[in-house]
Amino acid sequence: MTRVAICAPATPITRDVAAEVTALAASEFPALDLDFHEQCFAQEGHFAGPDALRLSALLECANDPSAEAVWFAKGGYGSNRIASEAVTGLGANARGKTFMGYSDCGFLLAALYRERIGRPVHGPMPLDIRRDGGSEAIRRALQWFSSDAAGQEPRLDGRPTVAFNLMTLATLIGTPLMPDLRGHVVIVEEVAEHLYAIDRLFFHVAANLTGVAGIRLGMVTAVPENDRPFGSEAEDIARYWCERASIPYLGRAEVGHHAANRIVPFGLAAPARRA
Amino acid sequence: MTRVAICAPATPITRDVAAEVTALAASEFPALDLDFHEQCFAQEGHFAGPDALRLSALLECANDPSAEAVWFAKGGYGSNRIASEAVTGLGANARGKTFMGYSDCGFLLAALYRERIGRPVHGPMPLDIRRDGGSEAIRRALQWFSSDAAGQEPRLDGRPTVAFNLMTLATLIGTPLMPDLRGHVVIVEEVAEHLYAIDRLFFHVAANLTGVAGIRLGMVTAVPENDRPFGSEAEDIARYWCERASIPYLGRAEVGHHAANRIVPFGLAAPARRA
Repeated sequence: MTRVAICAPATPITRDVAAEVTALAASEFPALDLDFHEQCFAQEGHFAGPDALRLSALLECANDPSAEAVWFAKGGYGSNRIASEAVTGLGANARGKTFMGYSDCGFLLAALYRERIGRPVHGPMPLDIRRDGGSEAIRRALQWFSSDAAGQEPRLDGRPTVAFNLMTLATLIGTPLMPDLRGHVVIVEEVAEHLYAIDRLFFHVAANLTGVAGIRLGMVTAVPENDRPFGSEAEDIARYWCERASIPYLGRAEVGHHAANRIVPFGLAAPARRA
Repeated sequence: MTRVAICAPATPITRDVAAEVTALAASEFPALDLDFHEQCFAQEGHFAGPDALRLSALLECANDPSAEAVWFAKGGYGSNRIASEAVTGLGANARGKTFMGYSDCGFLLAALYRERIGRPVHGPMPLDIRRDGGSEAIRRALQWFSSDAAGQEPRLDGRPTVAFNLMTLATLIGTPLMPDLRGHVVIVEEVAEHLYAIDRLFFHVAANLTGVAGIRLGMVTAVPENDRPFGSEAEDIARYWCERASIPYLGRAEVGHHAANRIVPFGLAAPARRA
């Protein structure tokens, strides 16, 4: 059995989400043992429990010698509040593990990558089962935990790569969680932001990413309707700010807040990488 | 007569806003001559005309030897797209001028302050006449242009001070527009952002402001209702991140997207400063 320990470093999921993901895994991936930490269902204000509870659950999962992987249940907001303490508290048992999530959990992927702890992976989370076609997203993650890399973003090109939510990356910049991304392909995706806000984030991010190998634009979904059209599309925005910052714009990627969200292992991808 | 040249580096106003502000100035400040540049009413997509038009209008206003001050008509989004070119194109006639605005126009105030061009001032803009009690905001600005500092934020304490919209400051960080704020009191205000987003912005900003004299929290207005309470208030958030970053939290300021928005001259305030 491959054991996957699941916690919620940002916001909580409900027990029926855990039950649905567990049922899918039981019927199609019998060699996987999904272990939802009780903290996944805690709630305090915006968060899945107070900072101290979210931190202790994450450390339990990551330091557990019987777990091969840590899976983040959901984004939302809040993993940045515990990420510095988390990487400090991770021991030898965390070092070989896969850590999978995206969106707000990019704060943790960044901190892990910066500290070279485990294998941070940008990929689907349990909550994705609620999306249209969400079972496919969950299967992609469960395949990855089963050492099947079929769900990997096919455009990875041999250069070290990372993927982030654009707002997450924008607010990571200059903080103690930010990894050195020189030489990397940086994939960014966004959800539920106006195009003018995406333009503003690209202004900030592109100016701070000099030295990267290039930027790819993931999916830009659920853009709210504005009182007037912005005047250009998300890809025009990416191209514009890449050009101003002399960063190669490398095209699209199938990464984002969507059931089609492909898997991006941070750093260098290896075919048939073991979870 | 003191001539104030008005342009819109971000988004446009309508002619009736200009007419109302002009009427108020004519009846109460006869020594002021408000000159709304035609570009204030231009529109292209999100912006008050294309980048080139907004830039040329700003340069005309700022380089005009007959104008004592440049007043930004409205924020919105977009002054960051022309700010680098603007400071490059400013000549000797711009150096003595007051430049007043806030919100998105903080990008320009920042760039001007960084390059030590003119006197950047965080204060009301013509569009504010549309707020509840907006005439008071306009009067405060017109007094300032008339060398009457009555509208100045009373908490300025002799240390160099700046004021910014929090999102504007967050996206300024690390860009070529960002001034050195070491030793400064930094006032931040926010509008129409969820508390979780304000928490995320403070995480980013506080980590990048080491060396400032302290942070003051301006007004936090129009916070959208979330699906659940965040669990703490804006001032708790400011205190929390200041403490984590070892930055003194200095209390509140009456600065923000509100008719009560007080005036903050960048740098060292001087009583009865001349416009």
